[in-house]
Order: sequence, then structure tokens, then C-alpha cells
Amino acid sequence: MRERAITGVYETVLYADDVEAMKAFYEDVLGLRLVDGPDELSAAFRLPDGGVLLVFHPGRSGQPSRAVPSHGAHGTGHVAFRIPPGTHDEWRHALLEHGVVVEREVEWPRGGRSLYVRDPAGNSVELTADEIWPA
Amino acid sequence: MRERAITGVYETVLYADDVEAMKAFYEDVLGLRLVDGPDELSAAFRLPDGGVLLVFHPGRSGQPSRAVPSHGAHGTGHVAFRIPPGTHDEWRHALLEHGVVVEREVEWPRGGRSLYVRDPAGNSVELTADEIWPA
Repeated sequence: MRERAITGVYETVLYADDVEAMKAFYEDVLGLRLVDGPDELSAAFRLPDGGVLLVFHPGRSGQPSRAVPSHGAHGTGHVAFRIPPGTHDEWRHALLEHGVVVEREVEWPRGGRSLYVRDPAGNSVELTADEIWPA
Repeated sequence: MRERAITGVYETVLYADDVEAMKAFYEDVLGLRLVDGPDELSAAFRLPDGGVLLVFHPGRSGQPSRAVPSHGAHGTGHVAFRIPPGTHDEWRHALLEHGVVVEREVEWPRGGRSLYVRDPAGNSVELTADEIWPA
């Protein structure tokens, strides 16, 4: 197994009926780098660590006739992003400037904290600089 | 922005009504390392690059009374994992040994290819060693 072992997540996916609104949020508010779209189907953002965040219109990505297997979820998803240590206050300020309400701030039992906001589709977006899960 | 810039995705989330079945698939078939759960709510897997894959029961993670903001999606999601170059054949063989059908294999226009399977909840799981998206 070791030789073929998965090394990490490459694509993380969120869904939204309004892909354009998601583009505005993830690019302008969160500062992600758009590398594809937005169009009626999707938008793609490249993260500094090489990963990719994809936003799909679930009705369109769920069509069976696509070149790739169909997928599409409804409801509110969740993603957590890594931010540099010591930037929580700066983020709180920047989110406020964009009129984005911090829904909750959580202090974790083993130390560290997270800021939670909602994207335009209602997905729960978390920003943290800390290790929340066991190593 | 540069000082506070998001550096990557920390938590990627999939949903399933049967968290235990997801644990079996992601741990035994895909070889991910379980670090929390599984319980009625969730399971957490740590990836070698430091990222975390979370599986949630959407009915339970969607409850409003939790310590963290609620979320929960229904339908089929999608995730892509990075595998080492040159291990596609090894993966195809290993998946077959576990009785997991490769739903599709896609050759990408700019080079590279992906294997697609379904997890027990029907989520579309992609394995690729290549760069599919613009840098």
C-alpha cells in the first residue's frame, strides 16, 4: 500500500446554484485565485499549497451525460481553510469590511480557534490556523 | 491580503447516512488513516500532507444545537485524491481486489488521467497523479 498511498486531497468541492456569486465571495472576500470559470457549470480556485477548490452547480454537475461521473449535492456543505497563525484579528476585520458576519468563533479544547462564516450558498466556511484534529 | 492569505484547504467534507460503511471504504480500500470516530456523527481521516477528510451524517451535523455551525448536504458529492505517479495500474488492481468497480477512467486533454469510483454513499471519488487544472 505504501508505494501507491494517497498523499492528499487534490479537489475539494462545494455546491451552489449561483456560481457567479460564489466566485465573488471566494475571490474577493477570501482572496482565492480563480483559475477556471465561472460559467454555468463551475468555477475553480487554486490554493497556494497546490490544492483546488471547485464550485459546481449541482443540477448541472449531476447530469448523467457529462464526460466525468455525475455528482451534485443539495444543502449546506462545509470546508475549512488554513490561515497563517496570528491573523484571526486581521481576518475578522477584513470580513467585516466586506459585510460578512462571523457566525461563530470557537475556542478548541486542545488549543486554537476557528472563525466561521457562510458563503453565498449557505455553506459553512471555517478559517483556522490551528490543529483541531489528532495528528 | 498577502500576510493573512489562505494557504490551503484544511478540512474536506463528504456526507453519508452510514458513517461506519464510509470508515470501512476510506480506511480499508483507500488506505486513509482514521484519527477520530467513527461514531453516529462523524469520522475523520488524516492525509499524509496534513489535510483532513471528514465524513458527516448530514442529519446529525445539520442539527442547530451543535457547538459549531450546522451543515449537512444530501446527494452525491465529489472529492479527488492525489496518488503517486505511475500507480494507476496498481490502484486499478487493488480496487478490483476489494470488489470496487472503476466507474470511469478519463484521459485529460492536457495530459494525465483519473480513475473514478463510488464510495458507499455514492460520492464520486477520483484518483489522479496529474495536474488537471490550470496552475
